[in-house]
Amino acid sequence: MIGGGEGAFIGAVHRIAAQIDNQYELVCGAFSSDAEKSRRSGQALGISNDRVYASYQELFERENLLPPAERVEVISIVTPNHLHFQPAKLALENGYHVILDKPMTFSLEEAIELKQIAGKSGRSFCLTHTYTGYPMIKEARHFIRSGQLGTIKKIYVEYPQGWLSTFEEGKDNKQAAWRTDPQKSGIAGAMGDIGTHAFNLAEYVSNLQVSKLCADINTVVEGRRLDDDGTVLLKFSNGASGMLLATQVAAGEENNLRIRVYGENGGIEWQQSDANTLQVKWLNKPAEVWRTGSAYLSSYAQHNTRTPAGHPEGYLEAFANLYRNFALTVKAGLEGRVPEEEWLDFPGAEEGVRGMAFIEHVIRSGQSAEKWTDFNI
Amino acid sequence: MIGGGEGAFIGAVHRIAAQIDNQYELVCGAFSSDAEKSRRSGQALGISNDRVYASYQELFERENLLPPAERVEVISIVTPNHLHFQPAKLALENGYHVILDKPMTFSLEEAIELKQIAGKSGRSFCLTHTYTGYPMIKEARHFIRSGQLGTIKKIYVEYPQGWLSTFEEGKDNKQAAWRTDPQKSGIAGAMGDIGTHAFNLAEYVSNLQVSKLCADINTVVEGRRLDDDGTVLLKFSNGASGMLLATQVAAGEENNLRIRVYGENGGIEWQQSDANTLQVKWLNKPAEVWRTGSAYLSSYAQHNTRTPAGHPEGYLEAFANLYRNFALTVKAGLEGRVPEEEWLDFPGAEEGVRGMAFIEHVIRSGQSAEKWTDFNI
Amino acid sequence: MIGGGEGAFIGAVHRIAAQIDNQYELVCGAFSSDAEKSRRSGQALGISNDRVYASYQELFERENLLPPAERVEVISIVTPNHLHFQPAKLALENGYHVILDKPMTFSLEEAIELKQIAGKSGRSFCLTHTYTGYPMIKEARHFIRSGQLGTIKKIYVEYPQGWLSTFEEGKDNKQAAWRTDPQKSGIAGAMGDIGTHAFNLAEYVSNLQVSKLCADINTVVEGRRLDDDGTVLLKFSNGASGMLLATQVAAGEENNLRIRVYGENGGIEWQQSDANTLQVKWLNKPAEVWRTGSAYLSSYAQHNTRTPAGHPEGYLEAFANLYRNFALTVKAGLEGRVPEEEWLDFPGAEEGVRGMAFIEHVIRSGQSAEKWTDFNI
Amino acid sequence: MIGGGEGAFIGAVHRIAAQIDNQYELVCGAFSSDAEKSRRSGQALGISNDRVYASYQELFERENLLPPAERVEVISIVTPNHLHFQPAKLALENGYHVILDKPMTFSLEEAIELKQIAGKSGRSFCLTHTYTGYPMIKEARHFIRSGQLGTIKKIYVEYPQGWLSTFEEGKDNKQAAWRTDPQKSGIAGAMGDIGTHAFNLAEYVSNLQVSKLCADINTVVEGRRLDDDGTVLLKFSNGASGMLLATQVAAGEENNLRIRVYGENGGIEWQQSDANTLQVKWLNKPAEVWRTGSAYLSSYAQHNTRTPAGHPEGYLEAFANLYRNFALTVKAGLEGRVPEEEWLDFPGAEEGVRGMAFIEHVIRSGQSAEKWTDFNI
Repeated sequence: MIGGGEGAFIGAVHRIAAQIDNQYELVCGAFSSDAEKSRRSGQALGISNDRVYASYQELFERENLLPPAERVEVISIVTPNHLHFQPAKLALENGYHVILDKPMTFSLEEAIELKQIAGKSGRSFCLTHTYTGYPMIKEARHFIRSGQLGTIKKIYVEYPQGWLSTFEEGKDNKQAAWRTDPQKSGIAGAMGDIGTHAFNLAEYVSNLQVSKLCADINTVVEGRRLDDDGTVLLKFSNGASGMLLATQVAAGEENNLRIRVYGENGGIEWQQSDANTLQVKWLNKPAEVWRTGSAYLSSYAQHNTRTPAGHPEGYLEAFANLYRNFALTVKAGLEGRVPEEEWLDFPGAEEGVRGMAFIEHVIRSGQSAEKWTDFNI
Repeated sequence: MIGGGEGAFIGAVHRIAAQIDNQYELVCGAFSSDAEKSRRSGQALGISNDRVYASYQELFERENLLPPAERVEVISIVTPNHLHFQPAKLALENGYHVILDKPMTFSLEEAIELKQIAGKSGRSFCLTHTYTGYPMIKEARHFIRSGQLGTIKKIYVEYPQGWLSTFEEGKDNKQAAWRTDPQKSGIAGAMGDIGTHAFNLAEYVSNLQVSKLCADINTVVEGRRLDDDGTVLLKFSNGASGMLLATQVAAGEENNLRIRVYGENGGIEWQQSDANTLQVKWLNKPAEVWRTGSAYLSSYAQHNTRTPAGHPEGYLEAFANLYRNFALTVKAGLEGRVPEEEWLDFPGAEEGVRGMAFIEHVIRSGQSAEKWTDFNI
Repeated sequence: MIGGGEGAFIGAVHRIAAQIDNQYELVCGAFSSDAEKSRRSGQALGISNDRVYASYQELFERENLLPPAERVEVISIVTPNHLHFQPAKLALENGYHVILDKPMTFSLEEAIELKQIAGKSGRSFCLTHTYTGYPMIKEARHFIRSGQLGTIKKIYVEYPQGWLSTFEEGKDNKQAAWRTDPQKSGIAGAMGDIGTHAFNLAEYVSNLQVSKLCADINTVVEGRRLDDDGTVLLKFSNGASGMLLATQVAAGEENNLRIRVYGENGGIEWQQSDANTLQVKWLNKPAEVWRTGSAYLSSYAQHNTRTPAGHPEGYLEAFANLYRNFALTVKAGLEGRVPEEEWLDFPGAEEGVRGMAFIEHVIRSGQSAEKWTDFNI
Repeated sequence: MIGGGEGAFIGAVHRIAAQIDNQYELVCGAFSSDAEKSRRSGQALGISNDRVYASYQELFERENLLPPAERVEVISIVTPNHLHFQPAKLALENGYHVILDKPMTFSLEEAIELKQIAGKSGRSFCLTHTYTGYPMIKEARHFIRSGQLGTIKKIYVEYPQGWLSTFEEGKDNKQAAWRTDPQKSGIAGAMGDIGTHAFNLAEYVSNLQVSKLCADINTVVEGRRLDDDGTVLLKFSNGASGMLLATQVAAGEENNLRIRVYGENGGIEWQQSDANTLQVKWLNKPAEVWRTGSAYLSSYAQHNTRTPAGHPEGYLEAFANLYRNFALTVKAGLEGRVPEEEWLDFPGAEEGVRGMAFIEHVIRSGQSAEKWTDFNI
C-alpha cells in the first residue's frame, strides 16, 4: 500500500475492503511521504518493520530485490491525486498489479499515458469507483443492458454532500485541505472528488457514453480555491439526455448518491442510503422492489453479495467487491484460467481516462459562454 | 365555472377544492364550448338550467342582468391555456373575482395585459399553482424567510412524470391532446404544464427570483409537437444557483414533485408523495421531521391544515387551501375587513406573469447556443 | 347532524367528508346539548335558524312536521359514545337514514338492539370506520378475497398514538376528557376509540372473523379511569393467528395505523402515513408497490379515488368515500335501482355489533387469568 | 473455528466478521464432524493441513500440545445448537476464549452450567447476538439509559421472516433441516432461532428485564416438527409492557427486525432494513433522524462505526463489532490493561442464559391455558 497512513480516511477503507474476503494480505507499505509517519503507521498495522518503506520509490527498489514468491503482488495506491501517476507507473513498469484510488491522475494527459502503460504492462489495473461495486448497481447495469426498459431516454445522477458547506480547509481538516488544493487535487474540487463518481456511475449503469455536456460550476464557499458545486446537463451517445449534480455545499446532506435511468418502458432508481434495494418502475404496471440476496437476481448481483436477503451490506462490501473481483481476475491470470465475466466487472484504465476527461470537459464548460461542449476522448 | 365539462380532469378538482370548506356554491357555468355538452355537464352537477350557459360570453351577459345578490361572485376558469385570457379579462372587467388555472395565459403578452386588467379591476385574482397550497410548502417558505437556514445557496426542484412516455395524443387521450397542441397550449408543452409549477414552487419556497437560466429542452417522443422534457440550470437573484427538472417521459413516474433548498446552516426537502412531511436538515445536528397538524408549526401551516397530526391530507386539500384563502380574502374585502396575512398567501397575477416569462425564457434558451439567458420581466 | 358543535373534532371531519363529493347539503342540526351553543354552531355553519335545534329530540319532532321533500333525509350522529343509541334509534324509527360515528353504541346490548332496529327500519345505516374507506384498503380486501395470497396465516394490525401519554384529561382537553370518562365512553378507552378501528380493519381486509382473543389491557397514565393501551393475541375463524396493538401512550406517535396480512404465497402491508400505497410482497418474487389512481387496480380502488396516480388523497377522502357510497346507495334505493357492489361497500350495523363485541371481549379478557376468551356473538 | 464447513451460512459470516478489522487470523479448525469435509473446508480456507482437525475433541488435544505462542487463542463455535455446549465447555476448560453462536445451548440446564464454567475459567466469552452490534442499537440503549425518554412504558420488538413459509425441510435445504429438527435445535424452532434475538434486543435496548410473558406459539406449516411462529405479550421489571413477534412464515418478508421503545417523553425506532438510522420521536417536538457516523452520537455508536455519515454499514459490520470488541477486551486482558467500557459491550453468558430461559418460558407459556407465566431465572 502506498499512502493511507495515520489520519487518512480512504486508506483504512481500502484495507478493510481487502480483508473482508480474505483474498489479500497486507505485507508492505509506504504509508506516508514522512518516513517516520510511514514507520509508525506500518507498525500500527502489524507489518514487519523491514517492509515498511520511507517512500514509494524505496518500496519498489526493495521489493524488487525480494524473491518473486515473497514479493508483494498487488499495489494499492491511496494517495491524493497528485501522487497517483508516478507510483502507479512505477508499479506497473515493475510488474505489479495496481489498485488505484480515483480520480485516476492529476491531469488527463497523465491518465492517457497511464492507460497506455497499463496496457503494455500486461498487469491488471483497477480504479476504485466504489459505487459500481454495489450489487444492485450491477443489477441495474445488466438489467438495462438486457433491453427490457427499451431505448434509454433519461439519466439523472446526483451526488449531494454537505461537509464542505463551511471553510473546512481553514480548520485543520486534512481531508478538506488536500481536496481543495489545486496543487494536490488538480483543476477540479467537487467535480473530481465526487463528480467523477457520479459520471462513472451514469455511464456504467446506462451502458451509454456522454457525448456533450453543459456545466454550471461554482465555488460557493468564500475563499475556496476549487469548485465545490456543479450541475451539468448531459447528452449521451444514443441521443438520451440527462443531468449530473454534484455538490459539497448542500448543508445537511451526507453522501446521498442517487441514480435514475428511464427507458421507453420504465425506469430504475437506486440510492446509496438504501443500497440493498433497486426500484424498478414500469409504465403501466406496479413498481417492483428488487433486493440483494434474492434468488431472482442476475449472477452479477448474486456474485457480489455475501448474505441472504434482509441482511444489509453496505459501502465497505461494495468496495470489497472491487478488491475481490480484482483478486479473482489476477489469480485466474496467474493460474492460466479465463476469468469469469462477473470477475472482470471492475473499473479500469478506460474508466479512469473517461473520468479525467470528464474533469477537463466539465471545468472547461463551466468557463465557457457556449452552451454545449463536445465530449471528445 | 368556465370549462370543466364532461371528460375534463382539472374542472372536477376545482369543484372539489371549492366544496371542501363549504365556502363556495356552484351556481352557474359555461362548461364547454359545445352548448349541448355544457348543458349536460351543468345538469349532472345539479345546476339550475337557466344558469348553464352555451359560452362564457353568454355567461357574463346573462349573469350581469341578475340582481347583484343573486349574481355569481367568483369565476373559476379551467379551460385549456388558449382560453384563459379572454374569459379572465371579461370576468375582471365585469366585476367578478377570478380563479384561473395555470399557466396564466397563452402568451407572455396576454399575461402582462391580464395582470394590468386585474390590477385596475379592484377584484381579487388567484392562479391555481396548487402546490403552494400544501401546508408544509408554506412552512418551508416561512421557515426559510425566517433566516434560520442562513443565506440560501442551492435550490433543486424536480417534477418527473411518465404519462406522456408514448404518443398518447394519437390515442384519443383528451388530456394529452390539448397539452401537446401548440394551438391550445402555447409555445411550451411540459414546460408550461408542469415546468411552471416547479418554477413557481422554487421561487415561492426560496423567497428568491430566478435571474438567468440555461435550458436543455427536448421532445423525446417522436411525432410530438411540443417539448415533453427539459432540464434547466438556474441562477437566482441572491447569487444562489440551482436546477429545475420537468419531464413527462420518465416512464414509471407518477407526479413526483420534489424540492430541496439548502442554506448555509442546513436545508429543507419536501416531496408530494409524502406531502405531510417536511424534512429539515442541519449541518451538524440530526435532521428533523416536521409534520402537518403539529403544534410546533407556524401559523401558515396550521391555518392550511384541517386535521390533527397523522391524518394525512393531500392534493385536494392543497388545492382547497387556495380556494379557501381566496374566499376568506374576498369576504374580508366585501365586509371591509383587512384580511390576515395567511389568507393573502395564494398565487396571483404577479406569479402568473413570472410563470409565462419562465415559459418564454426557457423555450428561448432551449433554442439558443449561448449558455445563459437573462431572465427579464 | 347531531353533535359536532363548537370545539368538536369529528363533526367537522364529517361535514367535510359530506361536502367533498357534493352529494349532501347540511340543512339542519342539533349541534350541542347546550341550546345556545347549538344555535351558535348552526349559525357559523350557515344553517337557517329555524332548522337549528336545541336537542336531537326536537330535531326529529320538528323535521317530521316538514313536507317530505323539504325534510332532512340522512342524519349524521357525531356525539360521544353514550349519545349514539338514542338519537340513532329515533332517526331510524322516524324513517331517516343514519350515519353514525364509531363505536356503534355505549354497550353491546345497545348495539344488538340498534342493529335490529336498523334491520326493521328499511333505512340505510353506516358506521364510520373511516379506514375502510381508503382505496388501497379496499384493494387489499378484494385482492385477498381473490385468493392470490393463498390461505391467510397471519394478521398483524397496530394503531399506536401518543397524544394521551400525559394526563390530558386534567388539562381542559375536551377530546381527552370524554374519551377517558366511563360515563361517556363506556367500558373501554383506547380499545373503544382506536382498538375498534384496528379490529374492524383486520376483519375487513382479511375477510376473516376473530374467533378468540387474549388481551393485555393497561392503564398506563396514572389517574386515568379507562384503558389507554393494549395488545391482543388473536385467533381467526380459519385458523389464522395474529396480533392487534392499540395504544395512546406511545409518546411521539401520531396516528400510525398499519396492517400486515400474510398468506401462503405472500403478504400485503398498508400504513396510513403512506396511504396511497399498498405493498404487495411475494414469497419468491420482487415485492410490488401498488398505487392509487393506477389503471391496474380493481374497480373497488378505482371507484374510491378521485385523482390520477401521484396526486395523494388522504384521511378526508377516505372518510368521504363512506359518505359518497352511502349516498349512492340511498339514492339508488330512492330511485328503485340496484346499487353497485362497490357502493354497498361501507361498514354497517353488523360491523358495529362486532366492534362492540370486541370491546366487551377484549376488556373481559384483559381482566381474566385465562389465556383465551372465545369471541361469541 | 468449530463448525462452519462447506454449505454452512453462519460460519462464513463469522469469518468475515473476524477479518474486517484485522484482529484475528484463522489458524485452525474442525469445520465438520465429517473428517474429510473438514479437511476440504480447511484447505479451501487456506489453513495449514496439520491444523485442520477431524473433530473438536482432536482440535483441543492437538492445539494443547503446541507451544502457547503458536496455539490458537480464541475458539469460534458455529455449529447447530446441540453441538454448542460440549465444545464450548472444552474450550473454556482448556483455557481458550470463546465466541459462540446463539442460542447458547440446547437446553437451559446446559446454559446455566456453561455460564458457571465460563465464570470459573477466567476466559472471555461472547455470544453472537449480532443485532446488538449495530451502532444505532448501541446508541438507543445508551440514550434510553441516559433517562431522556423518562420511564419506559412500552417495548415492541418484531422479527418477521418468510423463508420457512413452505416445507423447506423437505427440500434438501440444510439451513431449514437442522433448525426444524428437535434433535438439533432443542425445544424451539423460530423462538430459538430468531425469537431469542428479538428478546435479547428488547432487553438490551430497554435496559429492562422481562418479568412475565404470555405466548401464542404456532406451527403453521404442516408437517413441521417445531414452532415456526409466535407472538408474545411481555411484562418488564419496571412495570412496562410490550410485545414480541417472531415468525418465519410471513411470506414475502426477509429479515425485518424492528424495535420500538417508548418512554414518557418520546420513543425510539430502529429497523434493520435501515440500520444506519435511529428515529427519535418526541412528544411535542419534531422527530429526529440520528445517523451513524455523525459527530453528535455517543462514544458507543462512534466506536462501532468505521465510515463517515452516509457510507452505510450493515450486518457484517454489526457482527464484526462483536468480534472487534471481544478482541480488544481479550487483548487488554493479555496486556494487563483495563478494557474500555465500549469494548466490554458485547453479549456474554448472562445474556445466553436469559435467552435459553426465554425459550423455556415461551414454549411453556405457549402450552399453558393460563395467561401469564412468570419469568424466573
